Amino acid sequence: MCEHANTEEPPSLVTLLTDFGTADGYVAAMKGILYSANPKLRVVDITHEIPDQDIFRAAMILQQVAATFPRGTVHVVVVDPGVGTARLPVAVASQGHFFVGPDNGVLALAATTPRRIFHITNRAFMRPRLSDTFHGRDIFAPCGARLACGEPIEAVGPRLEEMREIPIPTPRLEAQTIHAEVIYADRYGNLMLNVHEDQVGGLDRASIRTHIGGFVIEGLRTTYGDVAVGELVVYIGSSGYVEVARREGNARHYLGAPRGTPVMMRHAPK
Amino acid sequence: MCEHANTEEPPSLVTLLTDFGTADGYVAAMKGILYSANPKLRVVDITHEIPDQDIFRAAMILQQVAATFPRGTVHVVVVDPGVGTARLPVAVASQGHFFVGPDNGVLALAATTPRRIFHITNRAFMRPRLSDTFHGRDIFAPCGARLACGEPIEAVGPRLEEMREIPIPTPRLEAQTIHAEVIYADRYGNLMLNVHEDQVGGLDRASIRTHIGGFVIEGLRTTYGDVAVGELVVYIGSSGYVEVARREGNARHYLGAPRGTPVMMRHAPK
Amino acid sequence: MCEHANTEEPPSLVTLLTDFGTADGYVAAMKGILYSANPKLRVVDITHEIPDQDIFRAAMILQQVAATFPRGTVHVVVVDPGVGTARLPVAVASQGHFFVGPDNGVLALAATTPRRIFHITNRAFMRPRLSDTFHGRDIFAPCGARLACGEPIEAVGPRLEEMREIPIPTPRLEAQTIHAEVIYADRYGNLMLNVHEDQVGGLDRASIRTHIGGFVIEGLRTTYGDVAVGELVVYIGSSGYVEVARREGNARHYLGAPRGTPVMMRHAPK
Repeated sequence: MCEHANTEEPPSLVTLLTDFGTADGYVAAMKGILYSANPKLRVVDITHEIPDQDIFRAAMILQQVAATFPRGTVHVVVVDPGVGTARLPVAVASQGHFFVGPDNGVLALAATTPRRIFHITNRAFMRPRLSDTFHGRDIFAPCGARLACGEPIEAVGPRLEEMREIPIPTPRLEAQTIHAEVIYADRYGNLMLNVHEDQVGGLDRASIRTHIGGFVIEGLRTTYGDVAVGELVVYIGSSGYVEVARREGNARHYLGAPRGTPVMMRHAPK
Repeated sequence: MCEHANTEEPPSLVTLLTDFGTADGYVAAMKGILYSANPKLRVVDITHEIPDQDIFRAAMILQQVAATFPRGTVHVVVVDPGVGTARLPVAVASQGHFFVGPDNGVLALAATTPRRIFHITNRAFMRPRLSDTFHGRDIFAPCGARLACGEPIEAVGPRLEEMREIPIPTPRLEAQTIHAEVIYADRYGNLMLNVHEDQVGGLDRASIRTHIGGFVIEGLRTTYGDVAVGELVVYIGSSGYVEVARREGNARHYLGAPRGTPVMMRHAPK
Repeated sequence: MCEHANTEEPPSLVTLLTDFGTADGYVAAMKGILYSANPKLRVVDITHEIPDQDIFRAAMILQQVAATFPRGTVHVVVVDPGVGTARLPVAVASQGHFFVGPDNGVLALAATTPRRIFHITNRAFMRPRLSDTFHGRDIFAPCGARLACGEPIEAVGPRLEEMREIPIPTPRLEAQTIHAEVIYADRYGNLMLNVHEDQVGGLDRASIRTHIGGFVIEGLRTTYGDVAVGELVVYIGSSGYVEVARREGNARHYLGAPRGTPVMMRHAPK
């Protein structure tokens, strides 16, 4: 039970990001544990529709979303194909937020350095009885609840020097060309590339040509409305990365371009 | 940040209605913005499963649901195929509720007259940096948060005289016949018609025959249980409109009757 | 309106468990009713993805989840194929929790004895105007809201002696053999059996052989990681029941084993 539950401060927020889906009771069991620790918490779903074991996709979503939440938010992430194996449960403090989950890389894109990493070993931060298959309910949710109550993160267990990283692939920059790749496709089939707007900042946007899946797309635009319905368009997406979309269509299906598809952005010859 | 966050009054509610789905981080980013403005808010999902760009369906759901929420609720709606084009972002006050979204008709069924419509232009109601593709996060959520904090709606921008309407088609009434159509199908395949119970109030319910997709359904009943399993039934639905269902079945699939399917309700000959 | 809304106590929690899906406005309408009664409530979704009319599945999920919530939580359940027929609306007090829904067995696994059962008849606990097809909005949500406000459950209506039960099938125990069956499959295809860990407590775990769908699985393990990828594994699941899974696979599809599939657990011959 949260000892700070009766203070005047606004209660902390806990977000949940899992691959559990919402058809079973797994997510609700985690919420029950959280609210049992502190009925004043706010629990917010990020998503539970991560494809099984897709740690990188979960890490990307967490990175895009976490910073929109206020300082002090606790992000509990359970995309954990290694549950019941030797991977460590960790809690991380970074940028005024807390991140709780397995040390498999899923936290690493959002919990940027400088950060402090702790191995969750303190049984007081866990459910009294632990299962071997549901650490979301038995370790991560109880730990997140305690952090949301204001318990110091140092109390969860010993500090670790490093955590598992799953970095975004670095694009290869040549004089006139960026060798990039698709790193994320959303439900609309819009494709995010591993090229941040900072990396194209100095280029002449009108003269850029993007090569993907046998197609060549002219220019770096502002939004879908800059091209006709059904046309492909390249623009800086809302997360700051270059995106490829098809206006009122699905670029992923149209281009047959899953994650990892190579993309080349270059200046058009004069 | 919400200046009214520490008052004693119950915090306001913000509902979200989008076509974003919940597999990406878009909805969660909007929630992060809302809670950053005021950690005491309640954010409630109406649905995020509007089929892409189906403005009318979203407008129908908003109309059916909004009135169940308490006065002062802010409804943020992002079904916005025109993001990045000239359509206006608007905030509307109606029946003691607030509605925030694009001026494309999606707000018009719920935000009934008398209403006051405002063009959102005040940058203080937006995210400091605007994207061209995610106004849900950058304009509508921040504006909704400010309204939920008690900011006056007049502050969002200049008043507009009118907004885009997407009215429910009017049934054509003849002496003994109502020429109607299907306007909504729910997940069970129950079909809602554009006929309100007020329009059949004076008729002899037992003698009504409903013609749809080559079928004739006898009577205007009270509930599914009034017919045998597998039979078609016409009744006044929970939203006050006439509905066609198949008991323990899917009328939409059985009748092959999508939105717009013509329906005729008439008195059986004596 | 909740008369207790301004007390200092943490507001009560209301959970929702339905087969409504989230694509229409039905769940949101229930939330609107709940928040209209008391804007300070916390409303938590258990799931809305119960397959149509699968009362037993809903009862299993409720049983697994309810106990993780704090005392005083109100669980509103609307899996109600009999809406509009003679089945009774009930409210039940059990283990310090409240359960509200139709008397069709859906509450019976979670609301264990000792329990007090009441027939909801008091119109003050309902919406002023009742529909015949949406008791979730018109009876169960308003009743749940009143209970969450602290109204005594005795006020909802007359006490009933019993309610409809849908028990978990009892396994048949022989000297060396447990005749069991599959009672639940989750989204991963993990299969839960009607065998609680207490029932295998005295057995030699290493010597147990589980027969299902023509396969024989050796041993009773601790977690997925105890077998190789693609292998079948039997272990005590996180809810205390024996489960059958396929590591990084889907046991339900692999074994072709839906609910009701017979399973035999026996000691291997020496």
